[in-house]
Amino acid sequence: MPLHPLRVGSDAFAWSPPSPAPQSWSRVVIATLTPTLNGGLWPLRRSLGGTVTVVAGVVTDGHDRLAAELVVVAPDGHREVIPMPLGVNDEYAATFVPDALGAWSFVARAWTDTFATWRDQFQRRIAGGEDADIVAGELLDAAALVDERAARAKGADKKALVAAARRLRGGDVTAAFDDAFARLMHAHDPRTGSVESPPQAVEVDPPLAAFAAWYEFFPRSAADPGPDGQPRHGTLDDAARRLARIREMGFDVVYLPPIHPIGVAHRKGKDGALVAGEGEPGSPWAIGGFMRGADGGADGPLVKGGHTDVADELGGMAAFERFAGEARRLGLAVALDIAFQASPDHPWVDAHPEWFRHRADGTIRYAENPPKKYQDVYPFDFECAEWPALWSALKGVFTFWIGKGVRVFRVDNPHTKPFAFWAWCLGELRAEHPDLIFLAEAFSRPRIVQSLAKMGFNNSYTYFTWRETKAELEQYARELWHTEQAEYFRPSLWPNTPDILTESLARGGRPLHVARVVLAATMSPVYGLYGPPYEHAVARKHPSKEEYADNEKFEVRCWNWNDPTSLQPLLRRLNEIRRAHPALQQGRCISVVETGNDNLVAFAKWSGSDRVVVVVSLNPHYEESGTLSLDLSALGLDAHAAYEATDVLGGVRYRWQGAHPYVRLTPEMPAHVFALRR
Amino acid sequence: MPLHPLRVGSDAFAWSPPSPAPQSWSRVVIATLTPTLNGGLWPLRRSLGGTVTVVAGVVTDGHDRLAAELVVVAPDGHREVIPMPLGVNDEYAATFVPDALGAWSFVARAWTDTFATWRDQFQRRIAGGEDADIVAGELLDAAALVDERAARAKGADKKALVAAARRLRGGDVTAAFDDAFARLMHAHDPRTGSVESPPQAVEVDPPLAAFAAWYEFFPRSAADPGPDGQPRHGTLDDAARRLARIREMGFDVVYLPPIHPIGVAHRKGKDGALVAGEGEPGSPWAIGGFMRGADGGADGPLVKGGHTDVADELGGMAAFERFAGEARRLGLAVALDIAFQASPDHPWVDAHPEWFRHRADGTIRYAENPPKKYQDVYPFDFECAEWPALWSALKGVFTFWIGKGVRVFRVDNPHTKPFAFWAWCLGELRAEHPDLIFLAEAFSRPRIVQSLAKMGFNNSYTYFTWRETKAELEQYARELWHTEQAEYFRPSLWPNTPDILTESLARGGRPLHVARVVLAATMSPVYGLYGPPYEHAVARKHPSKEEYADNEKFEVRCWNWNDPTSLQPLLRRLNEIRRAHPALQQGRCISVVETGNDNLVAFAKWSGSDRVVVVVSLNPHYEESGTLSLDLSALGLDAHAAYEATDVLGGVRYRWQGAHPYVRLTPEMPAHVFALRR
Repeated sequence: MPLHPLRVGSDAFAWSPPSPAPQSWSRVVIATLTPTLNGGLWPLRRSLGGTVTVVAGVVTDGHDRLAAELVVVAPDGHREVIPMPLGVNDEYAATFVPDALGAWSFVARAWTDTFATWRDQFQRRIAGGEDADIVAGELLDAAALVDERAARAKGADKKALVAAARRLRGGDVTAAFDDAFARLMHAHDPRTGSVESPPQAVEVDPPLAAFAAWYEFFPRSAADPGPDGQPRHGTLDDAARRLARIREMGFDVVYLPPIHPIGVAHRKGKDGALVAGEGEPGSPWAIGGFMRGADGGADGPLVKGGHTDVADELGGMAAFERFAGEARRLGLAVALDIAFQASPDHPWVDAHPEWFRHRADGTIRYAENPPKKYQDVYPFDFECAEWPALWSALKGVFTFWIGKGVRVFRVDNPHTKPFAFWAWCLGELRAEHPDLIFLAEAFSRPRIVQSLAKMGFNNSYTYFTWRETKAELEQYARELWHTEQAEYFRPSLWPNTPDILTESLARGGRPLHVARVVLAATMSPVYGLYGPPYEHAVARKHPSKEEYADNEKFEVRCWNWNDPTSLQPLLRRLNEIRRAHPALQQGRCISVVETGNDNLVAFAKWSGSDRVVVVVSLNPHYEESGTLSLDLSALGLDAHAAYEATDVLGGVRYRWQGAHPYVRLTPEMPAHVFALRR
Repeated sequence: MPLHPLRVGSDAFAWSPPSPAPQSWSRVVIATLTPTLNGGLWPLRRSLGGTVTVVAGVVTDGHDRLAAELVVVAPDGHREVIPMPLGVNDEYAATFVPDALGAWSFVARAWTDTFATWRDQFQRRIAGGEDADIVAGELLDAAALVDERAARAKGADKKALVAAARRLRGGDVTAAFDDAFARLMHAHDPRTGSVESPPQAVEVDPPLAAFAAWYEFFPRSAADPGPDGQPRHGTLDDAARRLARIREMGFDVVYLPPIHPIGVAHRKGKDGALVAGEGEPGSPWAIGGFMRGADGGADGPLVKGGHTDVADELGGMAAFERFAGEARRLGLAVALDIAFQASPDHPWVDAHPEWFRHRADGTIRYAENPPKKYQDVYPFDFECAEWPALWSALKGVFTFWIGKGVRVFRVDNPHTKPFAFWAWCLGELRAEHPDLIFLAEAFSRPRIVQSLAKMGFNNSYTYFTWRETKAELEQYARELWHTEQAEYFRPSLWPNTPDILTESLARGGRPLHVARVVLAATMSPVYGLYGPPYEHAVARKHPSKEEYADNEKFEVRCWNWNDPTSLQPLLRRLNEIRRAHPALQQGRCISVVETGNDNLVAFAKWSGSDRVVVVVSLNPHYEESGTLSLDLSALGLDAHAAYEATDVLGGVRYRWQGAHPYVRLTPEMPAHVFALRR
C-alpha cells in the first residue's frame, strides 16, 4: 500500500494502467514481495545482527528459467548482491544480516536466465536422445551466447569464456555442464529485461533498542530525608548516588523526567491542584522557568531557562554532567524526557512569540481540550509562518543533549505534534547519529501509535498496562509479535508510569506487582518501570484518577532505597534471567501455552536451543494450579523422553515428561520462569 | 505493494524517506486503505451493480476533527464526491455502486475539518460554562472562518454564509449549531492541507462475467451420424441446430474450440498420434490451413487461412454468421477460442516470417519443451524486432471477431505469452468495448494464474478440476472467496474439459458426474462444462494421459443429443435453481458447513433473505449420511423456531428445527440443494 501520508492533495488524478510501451516491458513479473511496509513507503525495523529474509514471488510466461538476486545497499552506500535461489511455488529468497546501524535498502531483481534455460533444455534433449546435428546446432547457439558475455568480460574471466566457447564449437557436450563455467556465465549475465521491486528500506537499530530494561525515577526525590524525617529536594548528585544500585539490579537505561527549570506562572500544586502552594516544586513537564544566569554564580541575576537548561534546584548543568559521568562509568544509558511544550516562563515565549498561537487580544493561547484548560502549558504552533525556524530549534534541543552524550530520548506525547515533524526530525538526527533511540509516549489509538513507529520511533509504550486478563494478554502478544506490527513496532512494556496506576494493580498489591513485572520482562525484550513506587508495591491510588496519590509529578517524595522487603531481589533476578536467556531477548518466537485455568497465563519463547516457559498467576489472593499444554515438537523436545524444567526464578529443578506438566502458583510467588533442557 | 512488474530494471535506486519539505506536509495521515490491490497498481474487479466499500484509516496529531470523502471517477470522466463518515477506530468509510462498465477510479481524501473542530470545542466550552467574553471571542473567530468561505462562495450560498457571519458577530450562540449552516460550511471547506490516497482502479465487468453457465462443444461433432451409423463431419449449421437444446438447459454461453482452417503439415492423428492418417481432421488448435479463396466458390483455388477465417469443412464464414445469428436469437452468448499459435500452413508464416523464431538454417522453430517436440505448432516470437506489428496483428484477431458480434473469448494458454502483452491488448480492447469477457485458460502455478487475472482476464479456469476431497474443496472455497483473490480473481469452475478427465471422475461414473457439476454450479456463480461427454458421463479415459480417450480434439465424434438417460434434466434444473437463487449468483458469502462425515461436503451461501445449503456426497459407490452444523444466526434463522428446508434439486420439502439436521445421500442422487425459509 503506497500511501503518501505527507502528500498534499491535488485535483488531478486518474488511475492509469502501467504502460507496456516500447522498451519498457519485461517478460518477468515480481508478483509478491515480503517483507514490505506500506509498499516501501516506510522502513522495516531490525536491530544490529538481526536477519532480513526477503521472499519474492516471481513468474514469467512459458518455460524459461528465471534468476533472481537481492541487491542490498548498506548505510555507507556499499552494495552487495546476494543470489536468491528458487524455493517452492515460484518463491525466490535470500537473507542478509545488517552489520551497521542506520538506513539500509534493498531491491529484489529478477530476469530470464538465458543460459540456464538453454542448459536445462539441452540436458533434456540429450537425455531424450536428440539427433546429433541438432545437438551440434545447439552447441553453436550456446557458443554464440558465450561470445556475447565474453565480449563484455575482462582478464581471466574473458579467457575462460573464450575457451569454453571454443570447446562448445568443437562439439564438446561436457563443456556445457561444467559448474565453474556456469558460474562464470551467471556472473557475466547482462540481466537483459530484468525487473526490480521498488526499493524497500530497513532501519537498523542499536542493540539497546532491541533489548533493554528501563528504570524511571525523579531525581528530586533521590535525596535522603532531612533530620526531621521529611522529604528534601534532591539534586542530580543525589540521583547519581542511586545509580550503582539501579545498575546492580541489572537495569540498562535510567530515565529521568524533565530536568529543566520549572515555570512559576500557573504552577500546579499537590496532586495537580490548579494553584501551587508556597514552596511547591511544580511539574517537571511545565518546562521553562527561572534560574541563575551563567555568569552570576549562586547570587547572580535570575534569567529564564528552557529545554537546554538544567534546573538550579537539581544542581544545574554541572550536576547533570556529573550524573551522566557516573552513569557512563557504570555502563548505564541515560534517557532524557523530551516534552515539546513551554510554560509561560519559557525563554522562547519572549524571544519567539511567533512560535505560539495567539488570541485576538494578542495573548498566547494556552493548551485546552474544552472544557479543560491547561494555563501552565503553551503548545508550540507547528504550522506557524516561522515553522522552519521552530522545527530547527526543536531539533536543536535533541542536538544539544546529544552533544552532552545523551543517546536515548523518551518523547512526551508525540501524537500531539505533527507526524511529518517526527519523520523529518528523527530522520535528520538519525542520519548523523544512527545510535539514537527514541521511545514514543503515545497512549493513543492504535493507528496513531502505529503511525508514530513508522515515522521513526524505535521504541513505543503500549497498551500492556491495561491488558489485565489472560485473554487480553494472549491476544495482545499475538498482535505485537505475530502481525505486521512486528516488522516496525518495537513495544516497551511498562506495568506502571507516573501517569498510570491501574485500579487492578493498586488492589492487587505485591502479588500482582510481581506478576505484572514478570510478564513485562519476559513477554517483551524491552520493558521498563517507574521504579521507586513499584519496588515498594505502592498501592495508594488517587481517588478519582488512574494514577498515584501524592504523585511525584507535583511533589518531592523520599524513598527507602534500602528497604529489605522491596522487590529489588526479584528485579535483579529477572534482569539476570533475561541476560542469560536469548529466548527472552527477542519477541517473535513466542506462543501462548494453554493452562486450563483462566487465572494462569503462560507463554513459551525460544531461540536456538534456549527454551523458556513463563507461567504467571493473575490471582493476587489465592493459590492457582493448572496443567500446561506444551507444543514439545515446536520447542525441539522429544515427546517421549523426560526433560529438565528449572524454575530459574524460584530456583527449583523439575524432571518433566510429556506435554502436560502440572503447575501451581501462590500469591507469595505468583510466577514461574522455566528453562527447559533435554 | 507497489510492484511494477513491467518496469525494466535500472542500477540507480535508493530508498529515500518521504520528504516533509516546505508546503508539502500535512498533519493528516492516511494510514491504511482497503480495498487495494498491489497498492493500486492493478484494478479491483467488480461487476455492474456490485458494491465497492472503501475504508480509510486516517489519523492526525492532537484533538482536531477530521473530514474525509471518497472521490469516484466513472469511466466517462464524471466525478462524484461521497462523504466518508467516521466509524470506529479512526476508520472513515463510504460505499459506491458502479453503474457503468469499464474502468472506474477512486481516491480517499482527508483533511482537518477546521469548522467542525471549532464547533466541537465551542460546544464543550458552552457545556462547561465558559466566560462570556471568551464565548464572544470564539464567535468572532468563527465569523472570520465563515468570511473566508463566504469569499469563495457564490449566489445563495454566499448570502447565507454572510448572514451567518453577521449572526455570529452579533453574539448569536445558536447560529453556531445550525445544521444547514454546518452543511454549507462543509460544502465550502477549502480542504486546506488535505491528503489523498494514491488512486485505485476498479474494473467493472458485464453481468455475464459475474454469473454465467458455459457449455463447450465441438461443432464438427454436431452432425447426426451417417446412414452407416458412423460419425459425419458436422458444420456450424449442424452446431446451430443444437443451440436451442443448450439454451433450453439454461446455459448462457456456448463456447466453441477454434473454428479456423487446420494445418496439414505435421497434422496429428487419433488420440494425438504424431502422424495423421488419411482423412483425419486434425486438431482445431493447429491454426492455419488451406481453404477455398473468397472469390472461387466451391471450386476456387486453395488459399491459406488463419485466425480470422472459418474452416471450409465447418461451412466457412457464412455458416459462422448463421450460427451466431441463431445464438443471438436464442439469447446465447458465443465464446470463441483464441489460441495465439500457428500451424506451418498459417498464412502469416509466409507473409510475416519475422514474427517467428528461426534456426541457424533459416527454418522456423517449432514449439518444444525438450524432449517433447510440437512440430505442428509455431509459437509467435513476442520479442521479435517487429513486435509492435505482431502485437497489433494479434489484437486485430480480437477486433475482427468483435466486428462479427463476438463479445466472449476463451484464451488458450495465455501464460505462454508475455503478461505485458495481455495487459496492453486487453486494456486497449476493453477501452473500446467494456462489455468484453476474457476467460484465461492457464492451468499453471498460483502466482501465474493470479497475475493473469490482474492483467485483465475477467474469468479464469481454476484448480477445482483437481480438488477432489472434502478438505481440498473446503480449503479451495476459502482461498477463492475469503482471501485477497476475491478482489480480482473471478473463478470459473469446470469439472471437465477436452484436455482434462481426471482419474477419479472417470472412475466415479454418473454419481460423481452429478456430484461434481452440482459443486461447480453452486459453489461458483460462473461454471462451465465440456458438455457432450459430461452429459453422458463418459468415462473412457486415455490409458496414459489425464484426458478422454477417442478425444474430440483429434477426431470427429457423434453424440446422442436426445439420450433420455443423459444428465440433461439435472443440468436444466441446476441452471434453473441458479437463476432462482441470488445466493448462488455471488461468491463471497459462502461458508463451510460441517457434516461429521469426510465424504459429505457442505456449504452455505446467502444473499439478502435467500439462503442455500448445498450438501454433496463424494462417494459414488455407497450411501452416506451425516449431521449438519449450521450457523443459524449467520443465516438469519431463529435457533429455536422451526424452518423450512426445500431440496430444490430433489423436490422434497422438510421441516427442520435447530442447527443440526440429519442428511442422507445415495449414489442415485448424491446432492441436496436446500433452500432455507423461516
